[in-house]
Amino acid sequence: MEPGGCGLARRLGCRLWMAISKALFAEFLATGLYVFFGVGSAMRWPSALPSVLQIAITFNLATAMVVQVTWKTSGAHVNPAVTLAFLVGSQISLPRAVAYMAAQLAGAIVGAALLYGITPGDIRETLAVNVVQSRVSAGQAVAVELVLTLQLVLCVFASTDSRQTSASPAAMIGTSVALGHLIGVYFTGCSMNPARSFGPAVIVGKFEVHWLQGSWETKSAPGKQAGVPQPPYDPDGSQAGAHFSLPPQIFWVGPLTGAVLASLIYNFILFPDTKTLAQRLAILTGTSEMEKVEGEEPQKNEPQSNPGDTKMENMFQIA
Amino acid sequence: MEPGGCGLARRLGCRLWMAISKALFAEFLATGLYVFFGVGSAMRWPSALPSVLQIAITFNLATAMVVQVTWKTSGAHVNPAVTLAFLVGSQISLPRAVAYMAAQLAGAIVGAALLYGITPGDIRETLAVNVVQSRVSAGQAVAVELVLTLQLVLCVFASTDSRQTSASPAAMIGTSVALGHLIGVYFTGCSMNPARSFGPAVIVGKFEVHWLQGSWETKSAPGKQAGVPQPPYDPDGSQAGAHFSLPPQIFWVGPLTGAVLASLIYNFILFPDTKTLAQRLAILTGTSEMEKVEGEEPQKNEPQSNPGDTKMENMFQIA
Amino acid sequence: MEPGGCGLARRLGCRLWMAISKALFAEFLATGLYVFFGVGSAMRWPSALPSVLQIAITFNLATAMVVQVTWKTSGAHVNPAVTLAFLVGSQISLPRAVAYMAAQLAGAIVGAALLYGITPGDIRETLAVNVVQSRVSAGQAVAVELVLTLQLVLCVFASTDSRQTSASPAAMIGTSVALGHLIGVYFTGCSMNPARSFGPAVIVGKFEVHWLQGSWETKSAPGKQAGVPQPPYDPDGSQAGAHFSLPPQIFWVGPLTGAVLASLIYNFILFPDTKTLAQRLAILTGTSEMEKVEGEEPQKNEPQSNPGDTKMENMFQIA
Amino acid sequence: MEPGGCGLARRLGCRLWMAISKALFAEFLATGLYVFFGVGSAMRWPSALPSVLQIAITFNLATAMVVQVTWKTSGAHVNPAVTLAFLVGSQISLPRAVAYMAAQLAGAIVGAALLYGITPGDIRETLAVNVVQSRVSAGQAVAVELVLTLQLVLCVFASTDSRQTSASPAAMIGTSVALGHLIGVYFTGCSMNPARSFGPAVIVGKFEVHWLQGSWETKSAPGKQAGVPQPPYDPDGSQAGAHFSLPPQIFWVGPLTGAVLASLIYNFILFPDTKTLAQRLAILTGTSEMEKVEGEEPQKNEPQSNPGDTKMENMFQIA
Repeated sequence: MEPGGCGLARRLGCRLWMAISKALFAEFLATGLYVFFGVGSAMRWPSALPSVLQIAITFNLATAMVVQVTWKTSGAHVNPAVTLAFLVGSQISLPRAVAYMAAQLAGAIVGAALLYGITPGDIRETLAVNVVQSRVSAGQAVAVELVLTLQLVLCVFASTDSRQTSASPAAMIGTSVALGHLIGVYFTGCSMNPARSFGPAVIVGKFEVHWLQGSWETKSAPGKQAGVPQPPYDPDGSQAGAHFSLPPQIFWVGPLTGAVLASLIYNFILFPDTKTLAQRLAILTGTSEMEKVEGEEPQKNEPQSNPGDTKMENMFQIA
Repeated sequence: MEPGGCGLARRLGCRLWMAISKALFAEFLATGLYVFFGVGSAMRWPSALPSVLQIAITFNLATAMVVQVTWKTSGAHVNPAVTLAFLVGSQISLPRAVAYMAAQLAGAIVGAALLYGITPGDIRETLAVNVVQSRVSAGQAVAVELVLTLQLVLCVFASTDSRQTSASPAAMIGTSVALGHLIGVYFTGCSMNPARSFGPAVIVGKFEVHWLQGSWETKSAPGKQAGVPQPPYDPDGSQAGAHFSLPPQIFWVGPLTGAVLASLIYNFILFPDTKTLAQRLAILTGTSEMEKVEGEEPQKNEPQSNPGDTKMENMFQIA
Repeated sequence: MEPGGCGLARRLGCRLWMAISKALFAEFLATGLYVFFGVGSAMRWPSALPSVLQIAITFNLATAMVVQVTWKTSGAHVNPAVTLAFLVGSQISLPRAVAYMAAQLAGAIVGAALLYGITPGDIRETLAVNVVQSRVSAGQAVAVELVLTLQLVLCVFASTDSRQTSASPAAMIGTSVALGHLIGVYFTGCSMNPARSFGPAVIVGKFEVHWLQGSWETKSAPGKQAGVPQPPYDPDGSQAGAHFSLPPQIFWVGPLTGAVLASLIYNFILFPDTKTLAQRLAILTGTSEMEKVEGEEPQKNEPQSNPGDTKMENMFQIA
Repeated sequence: MEPGGCGLARRLGCRLWMAISKALFAEFLATGLYVFFGVGSAMRWPSALPSVLQIAITFNLATAMVVQVTWKTSGAHVNPAVTLAFLVGSQISLPRAVAYMAAQLAGAIVGAALLYGITPGDIRETLAVNVVQSRVSAGQAVAVELVLTLQLVLCVFASTDSRQTSASPAAMIGTSVALGHLIGVYFTGCSMNPARSFGPAVIVGKFEVHWLQGSWETKSAPGKQAGVPQPPYDPDGSQAGAHFSLPPQIFWVGPLTGAVLASLIYNFILFPDTKTLAQRLAILTGTSEMEKVEGEEPQKNEPQSNPGDTKMENMFQIA
């Protein structure tokens, strides 16, 4: 994105930045398209309200598409929870993880804004913001998001692990995202992805609510009064009420906890690797990334190469 | 899970236990997630009753996900009928089969309990327990479950046979499970998997019924009185009546018989192997497993290796 | 199935028979399961009439499953039209083609009979027999079946051609069958497969009609009077009338013509092979098959081998 | 198609023509089948109006099928926008691109004509011509088509790039086309493909409108008066009105712009290649194609070879 300003002393950092800027663009693009199509599938066109099945299938296809396009470039996280899971699994560095998350959130905002811009006014009203259904408690909502994200992250690891397969993970990750929606839409609208919740919330002017006050009530009620039909999966026909005051941090706490748990299960029980603590620290701080950048030509386009960090991990496996 | 207490004389048994404990955890996890998502797809949310198609697709995705995550660890049976089929096909030992089945039943109970815990009260009432529809006789129900499981097990063998393919069997096994539901839901609610029938039955307090009395009637009628809408696929709008007294052993006898039949068709007609009777006996009793554990470093994580027993079979094939 | 009675002089024929009996069983099994699940998906359960989409998806999954199970054994034709296309493409011998077709028709009858046996009486009435919709002329019906089968056979060739791929064709052939149903159900109920039309027609006692008189009317009207709801895809809410007297040979002429056309397009335009006329004749009469059987141990189970005739073709390609 | 008339001086051009005539037939066939099945899925059978989901799934399967059949022959563009993207990415020559587009448009017309011929009169009325929904502005419609085609072309590049994969791109391209329809049907009926819009428009006699006047109104209103039910996804139950006068060039401008943008993103940001400007010029003019034809036997059928132009690109990569 902006590779300029490479000072003499900061050569390593600069090279690293050039190496990951393409990955950041990929995450930005992928999350933008994911939010555009995924959230777009839940728009409430009055004449043909999308069914839960249709929403889930759209998320399936949208996920598969963005993973297919970007997995060789950035690993196709498209989700802060997935990025956190890779961080916990010692597969990416902390700086890269933070940069990925920022790119994902930015992409989600732009994707939601684009969707908002092209959709007729009364239909885009609430932009399919994630809300907890009225009869579902906060604890239940967190638990649901936790389990949904747990299976997603397990599936992401199993589908991208170079010890298991070298084929495209696109279809399987799409499968897992759709599975989450088929169950989760009834409970929480199904997030599994803080960026997917964050983008639309920002665009419909609820940023402060999402982030600070933990209440959805302010704008939802007008949305309802404006005659926007309720989604067909609203369990009791009423979305107004006390449940809107549930902390939306549900869409951060649930997915992130589930992702960490899944990362521990996969990387320490199901498919433990042999990294030492020193190696894990080097990966975490990005030191090994810098060494890698130092040791090779950064502009070389190797066919069939994995994205940066995964390659690193392989290096350790082999060494 | 608990590798401790390795006595001197029991070293072999202990090593074997360590080698399969990871597989047991995988079966537990996979069956738990399978029941959570599969049964969860049939919950009767009043505002958006799931269609047969939606239920079948959810089972498809849930199966694909759990197979993708666990097939390299345990072979991803996720189903006592599949485990029995592998036993009959001389691909796993009797001790391993029994342990797998226990892990699957335990996983199914935990998955059903988790689903029960997060679902609002009036919706979780019957927890999508398998019941035979009113106009379907007991014999017809057994025959349906037999055919459904037959095709599932044939497809599992064809998709995991290392002589045919080395790719992930996840999508194809999901396909087969969904196919069963698209037909079977109309007849029996579609089990094909005793663990899937067992877990919810235990949780809704019908364990004794499922196991001993052979009657579903006790709690179903109140469930109906509570105003829960009947599923859209109830053939005649009434689930109460004599048919609830059909023996639920249908969900054990049908699938297990179909699995055995499919195993015989696949392993002795379509793709016969060259194991001798002595080899089959050694596999059955687990002797060959012990030899294998003896002969190699148990903690070694070979990339791309098949789960234990399949590797064994390959050994015999090559030798 | 019955390899017995190998006379001295007929040793070659006998060996050939032993080599293909397994393939015949596979075709029988695959077509039986295909008809059971495919036709079963169109049963008219009053409380949940299957949609066109659900029927198409069931045919998709049923096709994928039977192809996955049998393609290494018999090539998974499961369809007389596909077998004819392979014959025209000089990929199987005439005797094998005739035997395949007989096995397919037998399988279709048994599959339909099994479905009939397990389905409650008023639901199985017409057993989803293929009928041309009332506003579709005979010529249009033949044209539709021709185009549907054309794309199916093109896709079968492209997905099983060892010059293109060695992966399982199951998913792609399922895709093609489902595609045909999504369009064809509205016109003709969608056959694309004479065996699928033949089996149910035999079982509901319309064999003579299907074969000799060319009229569907006799039993359809009572089926309607019995209160069975019409399928949702009946274009004008009325299936009774002059159109039932259309010759059901539509379900033979259309698919077979489309299959031949597709075979010519694929094997002579898109992917022409280099077989000489003499080689084609040897394949047609089965001579080359006998030579092949002569030259190798018939009971050897080669892992990863293609079914008999395809291997032959490869032989010629390489030679 | 017509390889005759090879003069002495024009030998090179002739050979080139022979080499690509098969590809042109493949594009013609593929686009014809794509329009037949895709547009056929949106026919408005009164008794079972297809849902948005059903239309999207049919487009998915139709795309997968035609890509599977033709991708080894022509690269399976099936879409002038995709062909333009390959041209911009320096992967095909200008003459080939123009010929491909002509073949695609011709195929689309024949496919639409065939569909028109087999469909009963009142159902085929409007032949699912793409129209912009009433509340969607011209700018919004162009933006939607642009984003839809952008993701399609990104996915096509990622799925056919020999640096990423050698597997069949059929399923992934189908995924992407379906994704576009799940969102785009609500806005514009979803084109993403000028040929798909062009073919039906020609057949329903709106060619001059589509091309010159930019108005759809003439025949749509009678179609509505004839009692044909409106599609379920019409946002406000009314398709008549000022919006019909929107320039249908939307279905050319939107997709082509999106395709060019996607080609730039993929070929210059995500997966830049190392072609020099001279090489790009040689590819553009077809010079390198002629050299290639000169240098090798044109009739040789190499197993597993990529279609012409892609091979060329690989040559440059390696050299």
